[in-house]
Amino acid sequence: MKNIVVGQSGGPTAVINSSVAGIYKRAKELGVEKVYGMVHGIEGFLNENIIDLDEYLNNDENYELLKRTPSAFLGSCRYKLPEIDGNEEVYEKIFKILEKNHIDALFYIGGNDSMDTIKMLSDYAKEHNKKEVFMGVPKTIDNDLPITDHCPGYGSAAKYIATSLKEIIRDNSSFDKTRQTVCIVEIMGRHAGWLTAAAALAKDDDCEGVDAIYLPEVDFNLDEFIKNIKDLAKKKSSIVIAVSEGVKTSDGKFVCELNDDDRKVDAFGHKQLSGCASTLASIVVKETGLKTRAIEFSTLQRAATHLASLTDINEAEMVGIKAIDAANDGKSGMMITLERKDYNGYTSTTGIYDIHNIANVEKKIPLEWIDTKNNQMTKEFIDYARPLIQGELLPIFKNGVPTHLVRK
Amino acid sequence: MKNIVVGQSGGPTAVINSSVAGIYKRAKELGVEKVYGMVHGIEGFLNENIIDLDEYLNNDENYELLKRTPSAFLGSCRYKLPEIDGNEEVYEKIFKILEKNHIDALFYIGGNDSMDTIKMLSDYAKEHNKKEVFMGVPKTIDNDLPITDHCPGYGSAAKYIATSLKEIIRDNSSFDKTRQTVCIVEIMGRHAGWLTAAAALAKDDDCEGVDAIYLPEVDFNLDEFIKNIKDLAKKKSSIVIAVSEGVKTSDGKFVCELNDDDRKVDAFGHKQLSGCASTLASIVVKETGLKTRAIEFSTLQRAATHLASLTDINEAEMVGIKAIDAANDGKSGMMITLERKDYNGYTSTTGIYDIHNIANVEKKIPLEWIDTKNNQMTKEFIDYARPLIQGELLPIFKNGVPTHLVRK
Repeated sequence: MKNIVVGQSGGPTAVINSSVAGIYKRAKELGVEKVYGMVHGIEGFLNENIIDLDEYLNNDENYELLKRTPSAFLGSCRYKLPEIDGNEEVYEKIFKILEKNHIDALFYIGGNDSMDTIKMLSDYAKEHNKKEVFMGVPKTIDNDLPITDHCPGYGSAAKYIATSLKEIIRDNSSFDKTRQTVCIVEIMGRHAGWLTAAAALAKDDDCEGVDAIYLPEVDFNLDEFIKNIKDLAKKKSSIVIAVSEGVKTSDGKFVCELNDDDRKVDAFGHKQLSGCASTLASIVVKETGLKTRAIEFSTLQRAATHLASLTDINEAEMVGIKAIDAANDGKSGMMITLERKDYNGYTSTTGIYDIHNIANVEKKIPLEWIDTKNNQMTKEFIDYARPLIQGELLPIFKNGVPTHLVRK
Repeated sequence: MKNIVVGQSGGPTAVINSSVAGIYKRAKELGVEKVYGMVHGIEGFLNENIIDLDEYLNNDENYELLKRTPSAFLGSCRYKLPEIDGNEEVYEKIFKILEKNHIDALFYIGGNDSMDTIKMLSDYAKEHNKKEVFMGVPKTIDNDLPITDHCPGYGSAAKYIATSLKEIIRDNSSFDKTRQTVCIVEIMGRHAGWLTAAAALAKDDDCEGVDAIYLPEVDFNLDEFIKNIKDLAKKKSSIVIAVSEGVKTSDGKFVCELNDDDRKVDAFGHKQLSGCASTLASIVVKETGLKTRAIEFSTLQRAATHLASLTDINEAEMVGIKAIDAANDGKSGMMITLERKDYNGYTSTTGIYDIHNIANVEKKIPLEWIDTKNNQMTKEFIDYARPLIQGELLPIFKNGVPTHLVRK
């Protein structure tokens, strides 16, 4: 490989830049001349908006800083490539830019939607006998990519969620029953509840854990929810509930729509959700008279690199490294996966899988990992998720706050 | 002093337990026999709900864990002592419990409202020739206690706010102008803008900082706000605004009430505020059509001990230690204050001040520290606040999350 290019796509994570770091490092070890970065993903690449990563990463200090920088260092996009048929000019333009810059391999770090880009480009290359190769690098806090055991980005978001919930539970327990408070915490996850399930990781010897977890995998029943709150209120002064932004009633209506019907739709046709916790909090006040507090982790849960999981950072770097190795072996149209080696003494290794089985497919939580009777997660889920939040990579503090590496 | 008792009151902070730690440590050094803790402040004390802190703090490991535990370890309350005249039975009950347990000194860790408790108890003691002494220990994330240079709890909340805003700004900058987003971040502070002003600490060589800061000290003008957003939207794709929950229009109306008039009132007669950011976000959408995101730091900003300022932790411990020394010297009806020794090489020491000048008084930000033209803070504010967020005391991680010390 002479030159390569890497792009970042979709919602950012706390460790998406560690994959860029791994790609850069391994490419340079293999003698790649130029490692280009797409500015704002394939959308920027279509305008030939690329940078030479040597400008930023040619010293160890910046490399370490990049791994501690949240959000997409290169800039992200939510651009979906059109069908090849009838849109050949888009693909021709991309391959022209690749050829012009002597780029032999393109790496795209992203989730389900972004893997579609790798699928389309590798399909086009195959059909047109192009020599360039295309590799997908998994990334999503949602943890909903199929085949791979888990996704880089998930472990750090889960660690943030568990840590913040432990702090919220302590805070909510400050007062006695004279100030009984129902705290409803909204966690990201449109269709899969992996992130919300991570709320179960708050429970330990020193923490009672959340009182209930509501996931999009299970139909949401408002009457049962209110009954549960009332039952809990009889027993405890502090009640903390974790709820996914994507919970839906059995008729397919998002809970956040119970008060408001006209939600916007994003470029991929997904409904923009928000306010599920505040919707539920206002219903709880109305139905029970209890004091409530709605908290949304919002973008904090995907940007809190100061609390990233070291396991996650290392795996994000590793999938980048392995994507380079695979491309160097001539592989194309594939995504690097993570494989779990041992559930007890956790270690992971990587695999590689045909992108056609991955793009646009969403992996949900196995229903047998959900204790629907108690609105909690089973031990199987805890055993799955706990290893992914282990370890810390401390921020480099300057002036009292973590420093980041930022594009000029 | 034979025995003493310590209580925590009002909204908790990330370091309120470090003051308990300091009180316990110094009392034991001075040979105090029993250090009792009030469970849920003076309200719990009225029911003789007290614990012996030896149960928890007689080993170094727990002592270190207490300093890393958010929220009120002893439990808090929002109970305001009634006027002495006509309510003598309440005071008699308190002094009876003190005498019964051979308690010579009572320490109360709290903010403006809590200092009122120390005032009332020391006034009653003076009037009735009681030998017991009463000392106030400052605590509030709001930083609005008078006389003291700053308040324990503020530095850690400010560090959380600056760090989280840096992460939010990075996240909000992921996408280019095709996904331009106005992110409005709501920060606590009913009448004083100290916490919201800490948003200014996000700005550095590696961060553009927030685009505007709106404080309760300055009348909020909705037209100017919308104009500012429109002007910013012409220049930048990512816009991040910090706004205090307490911002008010010139006619005294809270911004969060612009959509909703019937807010609840807490035990002290304060209005319960929330939703200022989401109110503004919905107005921005209506007026400009721009994509918005509302984020509330909510209780996270006061509970994020995992990101506490070491300076703050040390000072919280120090005011506890000094309160013991003062009580041991026979002082009563006073609060320990923090004094800044040097603005350049920051060091602090403690003072002591008559509680009558402190209770129920709120200190706001000096208007000359607010750059109202640019909706930013001046260098004077940065020089004041920056030293307070310095240093870290790492959590003790277990199972991937920070551990806490919790009352049985």
